[in-house]
Amino acid sequence: MDFRKEIDFIVEIDKVKQILRQTRLFNNSRDENDAEHSWTVCIMALIFKKHYSANIDITKVLTMLLIHDIPEIYCGDTFLYSKQREFSFEKEEKAAKDIFMKLGEMGEYFFGLWREFEERKTAEAKFASVFDRLEPLLQNYKTKGHAWKKHGIKKATVIEANKHISETSPIIWEFILSLIDECVEKGYLEE
Amino acid sequence: MDFRKEIDFIVEIDKVKQILRQTRLFNNSRDENDAEHSWTVCIMALIFKKHYSANIDITKVLTMLLIHDIPEIYCGDTFLYSKQREFSFEKEEKAAKDIFMKLGEMGEYFFGLWREFEERKTAEAKFASVFDRLEPLLQNYKTKGHAWKKHGIKKATVIEANKHISETSPIIWEFILSLIDECVEKGYLEE
Repeated sequence: MDFRKEIDFIVEIDKVKQILRQTRLFNNSRDENDAEHSWTVCIMALIFKKHYSANIDITKVLTMLLIHDIPEIYCGDTFLYSKQREFSFEKEEKAAKDIFMKLGEMGEYFFGLWREFEERKTAEAKFASVFDRLEPLLQNYKTKGHAWKKHGIKKATVIEANKHISETSPIIWEFILSLIDECVEKGYLEE
Repeated sequence: MDFRKEIDFIVEIDKVKQILRQTRLFNNSRDENDAEHSWTVCIMALIFKKHYSANIDITKVLTMLLIHDIPEIYCGDTFLYSKQREFSFEKEEKAAKDIFMKLGEMGEYFFGLWREFEERKTAEAKFASVFDRLEPLLQNYKTKGHAWKKHGIKKATVIEANKHISETSPIIWEFILSLIDECVEKGYLEE
């Protein structure tokens, strides 16, 4: 059997390990890359699943989280609080199509999941998105606001960009709010 | 709600991003770390599932692959072809217990999955193990035998250590054999 298409895809998406994010590892030693981020958010989803009441397909959640940043290989990482973010969806969608389509049928499935994650309408997409947001919040907490300070981000902006979590998981949102308050108190985030 | 235990665990296991493996990224730019490896083998399992006839729980496979290298934070990476490997199981099991037990009930579940993966007896463990082996084979192929040459590994050793794949997935094993032959032909692996 010839697995050329599959192997070529796996080699191509390895480049995600060289896409650096704005946030750093918890020990502040270096920037995190997209593959590492995807790994952490999967572990988080597994651990926090019991605190989520909706009936969700966890395989779908994990698959979404594993593939959600792959298109950044073709269009780069857009910082959550960047003003460019709203305008970048079309660019990202093209990148997603270009890369996932290299994989044939399975790639179409991945592309569909990527869209579903971005649209954040289904229970799985909403749940997956919580961890895509929670990890950088924790990283900022652990690195004394490294990415927030670098970009001059204030408390209101952080709350505005993440408040949708309050509907998905009130219990995690409550935790995030207390974390944000602690960050302001400690001087990691501007009031 | 207090998520201190969960957050402490997530911060602790972040250290897996600093455990370097013997094999390098496909583009040969640097050594791969355990978090990146775990991400790739999860993607591989999703892609190759259709070529596996046994009825498997893919969520269990993904969870195994996500957590299988976490104990290396406490005991380091043991090279597949190392003579130390057989003696390291006890050390690894202690490390696994120490780290997973920090997470309470969910940690017990992870520890059970870690053991199941290591014992390679269930359909899920066998299937997951294929990708834990396939990735470094492909990395050696793409980096002209980087890790094999560094450690003076020969073809017979590679076949001996991986031949169990022939029972789990004859179709993937056939592909691996052709890959190994090509590596010998190209001078990446000693006959």
